[in-house]
Amino acid sequence: MPEPQVNAAEAADLSAQQLAERVRDRMLAHDHATGALGIAIVGVGPGTSRARMTVRSDMLNGFAICHGGLITTLADTAFAYACNACNEVTVASGLSVDFLAPAHEGDVLDAECHEQSARGRTGIYDVTVSNQRGERIALFRGRSYRLRGKPVVDDGHTHR
Amino acid sequence: MPEPQVNAAEAADLSAQQLAERVRDRMLAHDHATGALGIAIVGVGPGTSRARMTVRSDMLNGFAICHGGLITTLADTAFAYACNACNEVTVASGLSVDFLAPAHEGDVLDAECHEQSARGRTGIYDVTVSNQRGERIALFRGRSYRLRGKPVVDDGHTHR
Amino acid sequence: MPEPQVNAAEAADLSAQQLAERVRDRMLAHDHATGALGIAIVGVGPGTSRARMTVRSDMLNGFAICHGGLITTLADTAFAYACNACNEVTVASGLSVDFLAPAHEGDVLDAECHEQSARGRTGIYDVTVSNQRGERIALFRGRSYRLRGKPVVDDGHTHR
Amino acid sequence: MPEPQVNAAEAADLSAQQLAERVRDRMLAHDHATGALGIAIVGVGPGTSRARMTVRSDMLNGFAICHGGLITTLADTAFAYACNACNEVTVASGLSVDFLAPAHEGDVLDAECHEQSARGRTGIYDVTVSNQRGERIALFRGRSYRLRGKPVVDDGHTHR
Repeated sequence: MPEPQVNAAEAADLSAQQLAERVRDRMLAHDHATGALGIAIVGVGPGTSRARMTVRSDMLNGFAICHGGLITTLADTAFAYACNACNEVTVASGLSVDFLAPAHEGDVLDAECHEQSARGRTGIYDVTVSNQRGERIALFRGRSYRLRGKPVVDDGHTHR
Repeated sequence: MPEPQVNAAEAADLSAQQLAERVRDRMLAHDHATGALGIAIVGVGPGTSRARMTVRSDMLNGFAICHGGLITTLADTAFAYACNACNEVTVASGLSVDFLAPAHEGDVLDAECHEQSARGRTGIYDVTVSNQRGERIALFRGRSYRLRGKPVVDDGHTHR
Repeated sequence: MPEPQVNAAEAADLSAQQLAERVRDRMLAHDHATGALGIAIVGVGPGTSRARMTVRSDMLNGFAICHGGLITTLADTAFAYACNACNEVTVASGLSVDFLAPAHEGDVLDAECHEQSARGRTGIYDVTVSNQRGERIALFRGRSYRLRGKPVVDDGHTHR
Repeated sequence: MPEPQVNAAEAADLSAQQLAERVRDRMLAHDHATGALGIAIVGVGPGTSRARMTVRSDMLNGFAICHGGLITTLADTAFAYACNACNEVTVASGLSVDFLAPAHEGDVLDAECHEQSARGRTGIYDVTVSNQRGERIALFRGRSYRLRGKPVVDDGHTHR
């Protein structure tokens, strides 16, 4: 009985997907901030990720809406998992956010991140934060900087 | 014995300072996010504020440094208290941050905010985040939007 | 012989497209900066536009590459035509750009703009600048502010 | 008669100032874009510069105010001369601008740039653009990236 056929491109994709998941697991094991905020990484792949956070009462600011810094933290978390997914330690050098609508207690916010550019050691990633009704809450753009030759998890390869 | 002389400009300044402090007290009473992160508002005045946060273990990301989103949250908090200090409800429409150096567990971060511009209903505020050794950790620029005719605390005046 | 059927949605689309073109024509007639830089508006529609500029020798900086400010000017032009396309005078309140690759003399740069958000009087627009080989040169994000009740061209309607 | 005493720190300062001026001269000789826009570099020093532009009729957009992209170009020019003043070829990786007030034909705009941070190969520079009445027109923040080991002018030193 023949084995399922997997062409080279598919194999490479699988490997990149599996690597992204291993990196996520390793990062999550140490990511106390994400845990404390109840952020779940609900999806990850090469250059992409999706993070989810439910707005709790201890996330509200003095006007009874979710603190913009915490919406940014959610988006920044999605950014971190997307830009490290290729297994080289990568940090944020900067970010910008535009707030479109407030988030309220109990809202479930999804932050979806996609790589827009990766050249040399720098990258640009866009994140859209939406609520449970699909309304856009914030647009985020992050700039990443890859540290030289530092893998997140040992994958048996040498790194640049 | 003559009373201390206070000219009109000084009196207006005093009043603005007192108003800024009343707004701070009112906002803090409801600001659950700032409380949960242990952020203290250690100074406030017309168009300025200073917020302080000690980096706790539950603020560290997967690389054992303070989550950039939480550094942003500290800066955004200083921004919120500075831009509301004149007692008209003002929200962030956007922000950008450049990260200069990492912050570690136990570091005491100070975010100092100054108004750069206020025209019509929009404003620009700059925040510098430094650690206990005076090293700059992040530069933040926030854009504010003032809601029409909504005071934070009742000050006996009508508002635009 | 029956006339071609056009449903209401298509009719509204046509009208919005025609209005976008009328606004473009009116703006172009007065837009000296765009003319001086040889920028052509090669496409426009509701919330979108495409602007094109060939890098001339008088656009090069001291390092013999296109001045980043002029790449920004191209993107900002696309932004202006997209955010005014619905015929209410709209200005830029701010913008940010990330430069991905240099542009050289003779390069033909295309700036493609799409509306990301429009709420109340503010909007967010993204522009991608690419060269004639389809390589991305810059990513731009603009923030717009709509002036109250000022149409660009008279379209027989009253405005908010 | 004794010669004027110059201590080591003053000598180093002089040298840095002279180097900044030599870099400016070398860049200006090739900077066609700055010339075409009539931009003058009216001051330069280590990490600082001041650029000036008079708004011409061919800089006006379709609403008869100076094209925001050209205000950005002026600020970006000040940024370029400030961040190259230490004689290592440095390019912009990104920038953001907030527009505070319009500029009109005949206005004389000054863009004053100061280094805010320089770490490793990256830097942050702030530029304030004001008109001839001292009114603030725009706030600009630029991010720079220094190319490795490339001096702008030969100064007899080796470079990192």
